[in-house]
Amino acid sequence: MAHIQLPIAEDLGREYPGILGLMTFRPETAAPLNQLVDVLLCGGSTLSRGEREMIAAHVSWRNDCFFCQTIHGAVAAAQLGNDESLVQNVETDWMSAEISPKLKALLNLAGKVQLGGKHVTAEDIEAARSQGATDLEIHDTVLIAAVFCMCNRYVDGLDTWAPRDLSIYHARAAEIVEHGYTGVTETAITSTQR
Amino acid sequence: MAHIQLPIAEDLGREYPGILGLMTFRPETAAPLNQLVDVLLCGGSTLSRGEREMIAAHVSWRNDCFFCQTIHGAVAAAQLGNDESLVQNVETDWMSAEISPKLKALLNLAGKVQLGGKHVTAEDIEAARSQGATDLEIHDTVLIAAVFCMCNRYVDGLDTWAPRDLSIYHARAAEIVEHGYTGVTETAITSTQR
Repeated sequence: MAHIQLPIAEDLGREYPGILGLMTFRPETAAPLNQLVDVLLCGGSTLSRGEREMIAAHVSWRNDCFFCQTIHGAVAAAQLGNDESLVQNVETDWMSAEISPKLKALLNLAGKVQLGGKHVTAEDIEAARSQGATDLEIHDTVLIAAVFCMCNRYVDGLDTWAPRDLSIYHARAAEIVEHGYTGVTETAITSTQR
Repeated sequence: MAHIQLPIAEDLGREYPGILGLMTFRPETAAPLNQLVDVLLCGGSTLSRGEREMIAAHVSWRNDCFFCQTIHGAVAAAQLGNDESLVQNVETDWMSAEISPKLKALLNLAGKVQLGGKHVTAEDIEAARSQGATDLEIHDTVLIAAVFCMCNRYVDGLDTWAPRDLSIYHARAAEIVEHGYTGVTETAITSTQR
């Protein structure tokens, strides 16, 4: 059980896992959180949805947040032809992964943000820029990394339920790809008993 | 200069300081970020606005983010009869500060979240509850702490301008108290040249 009493999902007989359970508890903060993640991960961008989800999954892996790394890894894989081994490789050892040099430079940047904002150096920024990263891509990478340092702390700080059954994450990932983060949460909120 | 080129504020002849400069660069993410902070820090709550701003300032101090700790410290002081020494004490040494036992328990919780979500123990939660903290207060404290772990990384990860002239923060704090975070940012966005 989480540290606080969360609403019960009608189809599960217990709370929704991870951040979704927290969002059904506090819809007033869920709305802007989902809007933020929808802009960053699903909105228009010169980075693909798969690339942005891999940045989110990698930061969540660095923060040892099982729920977030698993759900965002599953969403990334769904965007990348179900290449789960690629996603796993990027999460845990991106330097050796078969990805573009630009994405590697952005993952390096995201890892520095995870350690703390002051860990980012002018050289990290220049390395990303020399691989073709734009100011907007650099901005969004830093903000995605920062957002997941928030989400990981929110999810684990309140000790939410993180199921070990991976099929639960695959099913949720498919819903996220189709309906976006806001859509999935709105459905969950209407399916809980407060 | 920040790591990316930010819009120029007409009244300053350079970018706005801290997160405000970033928000004028990316209004699409600024809107939900401000909405989130407005709900958490300015919205209805059984915690006072001053108490919530002190939690934000303390977490920002722990993350060594000069801009965030100074602006949220200034907003907290404005809410607390301009008692700047109290705010300074809470930021840097809350255990000895003249605040309620409940706020102390919530600041302990916020500090654990700053270290990482898994640092929060059942004992930390129980300590807050035994001082009268409700589930909603515990939730909001964890989320405020997590949000500032995001904001601090966003502000410092992009190396934004953090003026040392404290009068700039006092003036901005007065605007935030009167217009909220969304209002101040919307005015700034219309006052920049992109």
